[in-house]
Amino acid sequence: MRHAHGVDPAIKESNLKRLRRIEGQVRGLHKMVEEDRYCPDILMQVASVQEALKSVSRELVRNHLSHCARRALKGSDVEAQSAIDELVAVWSKHAG
Amino acid sequence: MRHAHGVDPAIKESNLKRLRRIEGQVRGLHKMVEEDRYCPDILMQVASVQEALKSVSRELVRNHLSHCARRALKGSDVEAQSAIDELVAVWSKHAG
Amino acid sequence: MRHAHGVDPAIKESNLKRLRRIEGQVRGLHKMVEEDRYCPDILMQVASVQEALKSVSRELVRNHLSHCARRALKGSDVEAQSAIDELVAVWSKHAG
Amino acid sequence: MRHAHGVDPAIKESNLKRLRRIEGQVRGLHKMVEEDRYCPDILMQVASVQEALKSVSRELVRNHLSHCARRALKGSDVEAQSAIDELVAVWSKHAG
Repeated sequence: MRHAHGVDPAIKESNLKRLRRIEGQVRGLHKMVEEDRYCPDILMQVASVQEALKSVSRELVRNHLSHCARRALKGSDVEAQSAIDELVAVWSKHAG
Repeated sequence: MRHAHGVDPAIKESNLKRLRRIEGQVRGLHKMVEEDRYCPDILMQVASVQEALKSVSRELVRNHLSHCARRALKGSDVEAQSAIDELVAVWSKHAG
Repeated sequence: MRHAHGVDPAIKESNLKRLRRIEGQVRGLHKMVEEDRYCPDILMQVASVQEALKSVSRELVRNHLSHCARRALKGSDVEAQSAIDELVAVWSKHAG
Repeated sequence: MRHAHGVDPAIKESNLKRLRRIEGQVRGLHKMVEEDRYCPDILMQVASVQEALKSVSRELVRNHLSHCARRALKGSDVEAQSAIDELVAVWSKHAG
């Protein structure tokens, strides 16, 4: 299990809050589906959960670049190359 | 509060299961952030929650088209136009 | 080769204009890469081409729902089902 | 006008080829709209242009990280911070 080399406490705090709120929103989605709510209303709510997850990702990227990635890119070519490959993989997964 | 005119029981069942699993994944993300796990590992997990939400949306769209939207598009021009505007709004929110 | 059952002339006109502009933007991207322009500047320009393509898609969806899809959803169950499957496939390709 | 500090010739070559092909695809889209082709067929083609643009972006990100970003992240805290802000802005524009 790998850990971050550094975590900005403000980013951590706001991401924990966001994820708590997202958990509640997902529970709300479950209830909407259970109650046969109107699909476009559920779909709008799904989109807003996805927006919230995007904010979490953005802050994780910021934290990663400021700590682990910066450290690796300062390191040897091998270390830097592996950090770059990893960042490109993360980019592909999120931006396509 | 608006309700669906018809809900395919198989779609409802699988969406409820998916949302239960997503709720667990979001709780897992909270734990990962709390434990200062390596950001790219968290980011990969966020991407898989996003994928799971996309499956939920796809099935909601299928259900909506099969029931409410079909009913509205068969109706008067005013009803049809309002259903189309709503579908385009949902499309924009999800596909940009 | 399949054709649309109906095309809103205003949508067609604005999509043709958008696509002409997008073609120019793509040529601009080619020039930027050729001149070794700063990658984030090129990436911002790629994002704006993506935005412009999303506007084209949104209008194509609106046109399709208003004409072909409406016609098919009014038709037999078999016709309607095939139109729904097609719309869900298009949704998946664009929204995931 | 800003330029890249370094460009991988293989990335440049393949991006120039991709962009030439994309330009042709956009011209093809213009023709499809002009001929009132079936909207879902056009929409599938738009999605494939967007996929192609995503490949271009991915390679631009890889090049940027390998050259300019690496250089900046090795630099002073001010330089590094500005490179990180820029990368997060590019991320937001592409991944939301």
